[in-house]
Amino acid sequence: MEVVVPFSPIDPKSRLSSVLSPAERREFAFVMLADVLDALERTRGVPTPTVLSTAELDRAGNASTEVIDHAVDVPVEVDDRALTPAVNDVLASTEDAVAVVMADLALATPTALGRLFASDADVVLAPGRRVGTNALVARHPDFRVDYHGASFVDHRDAATAVGATVSVVDSNRLATDVDEPEDLAEVLAHGAGAAADWLRDRGFALGERADGSVHAVRHDT
Amino acid sequence: MEVVVPFSPIDPKSRLSSVLSPAERREFAFVMLADVLDALERTRGVPTPTVLSTAELDRAGNASTEVIDHAVDVPVEVDDRALTPAVNDVLASTEDAVAVVMADLALATPTALGRLFASDADVVLAPGRRVGTNALVARHPDFRVDYHGASFVDHRDAATAVGATVSVVDSNRLATDVDEPEDLAEVLAHGAGAAADWLRDRGFALGERADGSVHAVRHDT
Repeated sequence: MEVVVPFSPIDPKSRLSSVLSPAERREFAFVMLADVLDALERTRGVPTPTVLSTAELDRAGNASTEVIDHAVDVPVEVDDRALTPAVNDVLASTEDAVAVVMADLALATPTALGRLFASDADVVLAPGRRVGTNALVARHPDFRVDYHGASFVDHRDAATAVGATVSVVDSNRLATDVDEPEDLAEVLAHGAGAAADWLRDRGFALGERADGSVHAVRHDT
Repeated sequence: MEVVVPFSPIDPKSRLSSVLSPAERREFAFVMLADVLDALERTRGVPTPTVLSTAELDRAGNASTEVIDHAVDVPVEVDDRALTPAVNDVLASTEDAVAVVMADLALATPTALGRLFASDADVVLAPGRRVGTNALVARHPDFRVDYHGASFVDHRDAATAVGATVSVVDSNRLATDVDEPEDLAEVLAHGAGAAADWLRDRGFALGERADGSVHAVRHDT
């Protein structure tokens, strides 16, 4: 099996711009990547992943060297194309099974990831919020990805169309990709890795608005 | 074990006001309740639940009699207090284990619920989005709930404080309570019950905005 973790080091996590500076977004993206790689490395029976990056990691701008070095203790392959053709190129280049795990799954644990790898279906899908696909394993030669739009539904349909068996992993940890400010509350509540600590070190804590809703609020540090 | 499903038939799902009329919100709340009760009834080893309602169901306004009758083929207990004291009264009134499952878990399946009931920890928690608690099982005599704010964190801390063992169920289906318009896309993508059909019958479908994000959009029916 090949395991790839797609990553975009250039202006990452733009939807967090209202709460993090550009330099902070880059660093946070690397910290989440480190958490995902760490969880994968601790998942039984999973080979060393490859980071599939849109650019050389040392062109990442202001993310500190220490953070980058910690994050990428694994091979890095650079492909500057969009996510879909880059992943499909990996799928087409091997007869082996391929796992694709997103780099912003800050709640991922070996237990949750283990459920992804435990299924022997031709296509295993871990849906993400907003009907995305946060992780998958593909064992069928004709299955290809399309990450645009409602990708979970599209991937389920595409797998069925090529005659692949499909299994869906029902995991809140794998469903929680961190894109929006509202997602930071999930990291603070459930995160067990470096991303939660990174947020706390920068003054983020769970807070409540007047209507009772819970959000990550930032205090001066 | 006692299983209670708290339900509020009066002006329910107010955060869906931008996409559903008051009559539609009432009916949708009943349809989701019916899905939850149906999933519980099909979960192995789970006794008949009781609906813990803030009002008599026939005072619910415009929800059709057919919908109500379908939804509440189980005992109904009326307690007009807020959720927290009503549930704590149930916890205090029995030495039996108590399960509390929210009425708006439109993605709940017997498989997902089975994981909640399979754990024998003193307190089993299924977190919800926005750091809520969507389902729990309490077997410790001193555990009490507080659904205000970041209830998942509070419940985890409260269980630890009384010396209870805690287990957390990692389920996207149980984490998805339906409160906000954005949650309707999850129902359309993953719902296997009446709530997804109800939305489709009223013209809702998955759609994509210019920025690529996926939402439930409503077409004329």
